[in-house]
Amino acid sequence: MVYCDSKTGVVFPEISYGFYSVFAELYALDYDTIPLEKDWSIEYKKYCGANKTIVIANPNAPTGLSLTVYEIEEILKSNKDNIVVIDEAYVDFGGKTCYNLIEKYDNLIVVQTFSKSRSLAGARLGFAIAQEALIADLDKIRFSINPYNINRLTLVAGRAAIEDDTYYKENCQKIIETRAYTTNELRTRGFEVIDSDANFIFAKHDAYSGEDLYLRLKEKGILVRHFSKKRIGDYLRITIGTKEQMDVLIGTLKEIL
Amino acid sequence: MVYCDSKTGVVFPEISYGFYSVFAELYALDYDTIPLEKDWSIEYKKYCGANKTIVIANPNAPTGLSLTVYEIEEILKSNKDNIVVIDEAYVDFGGKTCYNLIEKYDNLIVVQTFSKSRSLAGARLGFAIAQEALIADLDKIRFSINPYNINRLTLVAGRAAIEDDTYYKENCQKIIETRAYTTNELRTRGFEVIDSDANFIFAKHDAYSGEDLYLRLKEKGILVRHFSKKRIGDYLRITIGTKEQMDVLIGTLKEIL
Repeated sequence: MVYCDSKTGVVFPEISYGFYSVFAELYALDYDTIPLEKDWSIEYKKYCGANKTIVIANPNAPTGLSLTVYEIEEILKSNKDNIVVIDEAYVDFGGKTCYNLIEKYDNLIVVQTFSKSRSLAGARLGFAIAQEALIADLDKIRFSINPYNINRLTLVAGRAAIEDDTYYKENCQKIIETRAYTTNELRTRGFEVIDSDANFIFAKHDAYSGEDLYLRLKEKGILVRHFSKKRIGDYLRITIGTKEQMDVLIGTLKEIL
Repeated sequence: MVYCDSKTGVVFPEISYGFYSVFAELYALDYDTIPLEKDWSIEYKKYCGANKTIVIANPNAPTGLSLTVYEIEEILKSNKDNIVVIDEAYVDFGGKTCYNLIEKYDNLIVVQTFSKSRSLAGARLGFAIAQEALIADLDKIRFSINPYNINRLTLVAGRAAIEDDTYYKENCQKIIETRAYTTNELRTRGFEVIDSDANFIFAKHDAYSGEDLYLRLKEKGILVRHFSKKRIGDYLRITIGTKEQMDVLIGTLKEIL
């Protein structure tokens, strides 16, 4: 939101990470949201020439759907005077990072986190990649309002996580496999499941409402995410755990359905 | 600075922790500073009925001088409609905390840190104590702009530090003794040293300028703090280390002087 002011608004998908609208409201930004398509995808053309700061989670949450690098480049090309923030929180689970475009586009900023594929949600650690001038702007804000935003313990944990790259790549691979397994199992049990590039799946059942399933699973000690927002209220966002955990979920669903 | 707005300004001592004025400027607050007395002390009467938010470091930096709890209570009494922030970053080295006044005064907020007496400067961890309503205000700001401001690693480190209270009390006691030792040694070598309640001393030499001594010590690998600001430019702020470290300082000063 650093790249917005009273003259420059921001636009992001109507259904996406909830904090975008929270922050946009907090800072009283002029913000627009663009509805997702019928198939839950983001139509990149709707962001071309937007003339606002653009924020897109890729893959998007809670759908798990990705834009291609080509589509992101089209958005960048047509918004030369606007900043495009690509939030790659979930990119390591099957999406494709666009950070190679940074060399070519001075209006691109890619953000990633240690909270997902690097298993360090408790560290609250993330980072931004962009050309020098954009990073300098971020630093200016940081040094002004929160100069010591990352402490030494966290830096050490982050460095260790990066050094242990193999471990995390294997972990991601396992999650991708378990995601495919869970997707299939749920589909054979009457669920419509969106093909996900993230460490969660977005699924709805033909015969049960999202809220109903959420509450029944909760009763059995299984927490999945249900959103009360209109269009996505029928769905559940189910985070992929270990295969054993997913088997518990599938077994419990068998009892419920 | 949460407790200021376009109508409510802030006041703090002219010579104090540098971030007060940095933040006041950043948020474009209407701020005043009150000069210290000739003897470097804070005259509490100058803060009575100030009709602004008041921020006082107690002990103050870089002087190391404290207000008494009585004096703080007088400030609180005469500013019922204004928030008084007492920054007790250095209180464990000989100052007296005023947190017992919190029960009686809903306009008092006491802040402390793990960076000094608890040896966790790298953790960037601190806390505020006040009546419920004030803390709720702080939380409102926190949840709005930085909801995950303290991560799990840091919480664990902080908890461990509190559990190990004896260790830190002994440490503070050692620093207090080394401070007395260093103060005496410097005084016998022509320094004027202010009696300090903090983990540093503020000292000037009759024959050498602060900058000169700072640079000569730096040449020998000893870092002390020199401020270029006018009135305090003659002084050095010397942090108290181990007795061995202070002996190196004293030995080096013998060579220089």
